[in-house]
Amino acid sequence: MRNPQLNAHGELNHLLTIEGLPREVLTRILDTATPFTEVAEREVKKVPLLRGKSVFNLFFENSTRTRTTFEIAAKRLSADVINLNINTSSATKGESLLDTVDNLAAMQADMFVVRHASSGAPHLIAQHLAATGREHIHVVNAGDGRHAHPTQGLLDMYTIRHYKQDFSNLTVAIVGDVLHSRVARSQIHALTTLGVPEVRVVAPKTLLPTGIERLGVRVFHDIGAGLRGADVVMTLRLQNERMQGALLPSTQEYFKSYGLTPERLARAKSDAIVMHPGPMNRGVEIDSAVADGSQAVILPQVTFGIAVRMAVMAMLGGA
Amino acid sequence: MRNPQLNAHGELNHLLTIEGLPREVLTRILDTATPFTEVAEREVKKVPLLRGKSVFNLFFENSTRTRTTFEIAAKRLSADVINLNINTSSATKGESLLDTVDNLAAMQADMFVVRHASSGAPHLIAQHLAATGREHIHVVNAGDGRHAHPTQGLLDMYTIRHYKQDFSNLTVAIVGDVLHSRVARSQIHALTTLGVPEVRVVAPKTLLPTGIERLGVRVFHDIGAGLRGADVVMTLRLQNERMQGALLPSTQEYFKSYGLTPERLARAKSDAIVMHPGPMNRGVEIDSAVADGSQAVILPQVTFGIAVRMAVMAMLGGA
Amino acid sequence: MRNPQLNAHGELNHLLTIEGLPREVLTRILDTATPFTEVAEREVKKVPLLRGKSVFNLFFENSTRTRTTFEIAAKRLSADVINLNINTSSATKGESLLDTVDNLAAMQADMFVVRHASSGAPHLIAQHLAATGREHIHVVNAGDGRHAHPTQGLLDMYTIRHYKQDFSNLTVAIVGDVLHSRVARSQIHALTTLGVPEVRVVAPKTLLPTGIERLGVRVFHDIGAGLRGADVVMTLRLQNERMQGALLPSTQEYFKSYGLTPERLARAKSDAIVMHPGPMNRGVEIDSAVADGSQAVILPQVTFGIAVRMAVMAMLGGA
Repeated sequence: MRNPQLNAHGELNHLLTIEGLPREVLTRILDTATPFTEVAEREVKKVPLLRGKSVFNLFFENSTRTRTTFEIAAKRLSADVINLNINTSSATKGESLLDTVDNLAAMQADMFVVRHASSGAPHLIAQHLAATGREHIHVVNAGDGRHAHPTQGLLDMYTIRHYKQDFSNLTVAIVGDVLHSRVARSQIHALTTLGVPEVRVVAPKTLLPTGIERLGVRVFHDIGAGLRGADVVMTLRLQNERMQGALLPSTQEYFKSYGLTPERLARAKSDAIVMHPGPMNRGVEIDSAVADGSQAVILPQVTFGIAVRMAVMAMLGGA
Repeated sequence: MRNPQLNAHGELNHLLTIEGLPREVLTRILDTATPFTEVAEREVKKVPLLRGKSVFNLFFENSTRTRTTFEIAAKRLSADVINLNINTSSATKGESLLDTVDNLAAMQADMFVVRHASSGAPHLIAQHLAATGREHIHVVNAGDGRHAHPTQGLLDMYTIRHYKQDFSNLTVAIVGDVLHSRVARSQIHALTTLGVPEVRVVAPKTLLPTGIERLGVRVFHDIGAGLRGADVVMTLRLQNERMQGALLPSTQEYFKSYGLTPERLARAKSDAIVMHPGPMNRGVEIDSAVADGSQAVILPQVTFGIAVRMAVMAMLGGA
Repeated sequence: MRNPQLNAHGELNHLLTIEGLPREVLTRILDTATPFTEVAEREVKKVPLLRGKSVFNLFFENSTRTRTTFEIAAKRLSADVINLNINTSSATKGESLLDTVDNLAAMQADMFVVRHASSGAPHLIAQHLAATGREHIHVVNAGDGRHAHPTQGLLDMYTIRHYKQDFSNLTVAIVGDVLHSRVARSQIHALTTLGVPEVRVVAPKTLLPTGIERLGVRVFHDIGAGLRGADVVMTLRLQNERMQGALLPSTQEYFKSYGLTPERLARAKSDAIVMHPGPMNRGVEIDSAVADGSQAVILPQVTFGIAVRMAVMAMLGGA
């Protein structure tokens, strides 16, 4: 079976998940993003690549931050952008997801940027478009449930490549709430595909999915051991709002055991970079001294994120 | 008294309701829409007709779907679009409707697209603009209470003309909750004005306004009889959210008596088309087998709707 | 210490408050606004001064009216505008104000238009940008707590100059709830800086801040005396939603003592103009006969407001 994200020529047609994407495609996205980082430095931060195209930000779950990154990326590509917060609209009129999609597709949408609380919603949309002969409408997953957040994973890879050049001799430690994190899944798939020899996850047992080792990662429960010799430390947001019941004693306890402090970071290589997908819980998963410290590349991640999203949208829109 | 929608030259100055619009004006709108269906097929879906014009989507009632159609239409005409959801803003500061309008007019608005829960609100705004010497600001009714939804009526006419060419020998059946439907009113006025010889409404007594016959329609309570020999079947959305008390035993009961099933549709002509203004309640007013069947033109309605709204806005903006 | 709003060349870099801005800067803003009033009269209401710039409307407090004026101004300057209502987004994810700002800055923002319920928030943002080497990102205060609303003050000055030409021989009366009004503060600073010889505040003791005289105003508790001989009457909105407890017996009582009626207005000069920042509480601080009367310039204020905001944004964006 063909990868549903690629067209018959092996080109990216949707971006649904990093899982299963060939290394060449990932590399092509990162390469395409490079010139877009320069667009953002210009006096006029705009290129006409998507002029006259209609991009729908289809957010079934509120996320101002992610929506903003896609909106700014699309506008810098000169697209017409329509923001739709669906929780308060047709959903309340009882319309199904696919009827909503059919409707917007009938408005000659060119691209759907989809955020949904349910894993698989963007896949479902892409499948439905294919089944109804409209695979020329591109779908970008902007985060679905616990499943994937591929543009976050890609901007993380861009950031790592920017600072470390080469993936082939890195040790990368992902620290925190892997269980609830779509970001972690996208990161792991990207890192292993791009040839990082050692990918570690560092978390308490209760915040790790069972069988995580099968993704090709080494599991650490002790943060000191997990960070030792790392080139890259990727902290995850503690998903307060996703946690139910008693997976954790308290956020203070969490910080005590897993918070990224300068002392703990000292176990990593001295030129290790520190990443975070944002928004940060300072004093929970990360100490402010680290977040604002010289090893943090958290704000460059955001900057690269715009370029990566422009690259993905330009590749899809031109396909 | 002059029709408040037309200027001294008989040209469209506002679009408030289809009622009272001459056949020539309706036909001119449909004719103007035709080339806009082609714009949407282009690589760059944009024409500069409203460049530098300020279009305000003034939604006193939430409707993401309708707002989106107007927003995309205005953007494809190159207008600057400002979305205003008024329920949560100045209304809460106790400002009157007309003070809000005066304010936005003073910002050099060129067009107001107005959605309001109260029948007549767009008329009131147009009157107020005329009374204060600002009839150069155009008003488009995007749905007011139970009164009218003229662009929906027009896109329905465009759809019928597209599939049936000529109005003069058609039998059209409108099925469902006519009582609460501004769409039905707009449809009936449009159909009779354009010369459809037989317009039927098919509904239980409790969902029909008294005196509906005076609009020139034939009333049927039995759906089998109502659909017999029809060229066009226009289903209406069951306005769950508008119904209070016990006009209906239940939506299941409604489906049993009035839901559009393949069996019932078989009573219409074999080439009859099925329309719905959306969003659909599948299994209530329409069976999925019909909604997704070969006779349904529900998604083309949406596509034509963009072209029709572009046509209306271009005609007004150029007047 | 340098004024944090000005750069090393004494040019405007942020607009945070009118307090402390030199008369030349105020005058330059008003002068710059003049040609923009003509842009709004054109067929194509657009100039390319901010093309490819990213303007973020950062509203931590809801204000559709103010957001709209900035949005339309930015769009007429051809900027890309991103609207952010932060109360419902990252704030709920517990991110700090400055982390939010850092993030948006990392998206290569060119300008933040900031509305916040806390006095000083825009200053804090400007300081933070300076401290982190990003003073090329401009901050415009769109209203902070009880502190300032400088573009409102500027548009008021533009309006006065338009109708009265010269500030140097005017008597200006500010009537109403000075205590809760950021608008009043901005007006007083602007008027005294521009050389108005007599600035009066007219209000009950409970709606005046202690020590208001030190700002260079004369205090009146009797509206008849306060309006006598005035050239300009600036009414303030009674901030119902800001008042807690019993500062006032009732809005009816307030109207009886301080509402601007035609009789009271007759005490001012016969060619006095009447201003209001909107939205008006008719029958509370202003009688409809005055609001809609020939001396009212309330709607021209709105029109000039767009031009003034375009001027401020163009001056900052070009700096």
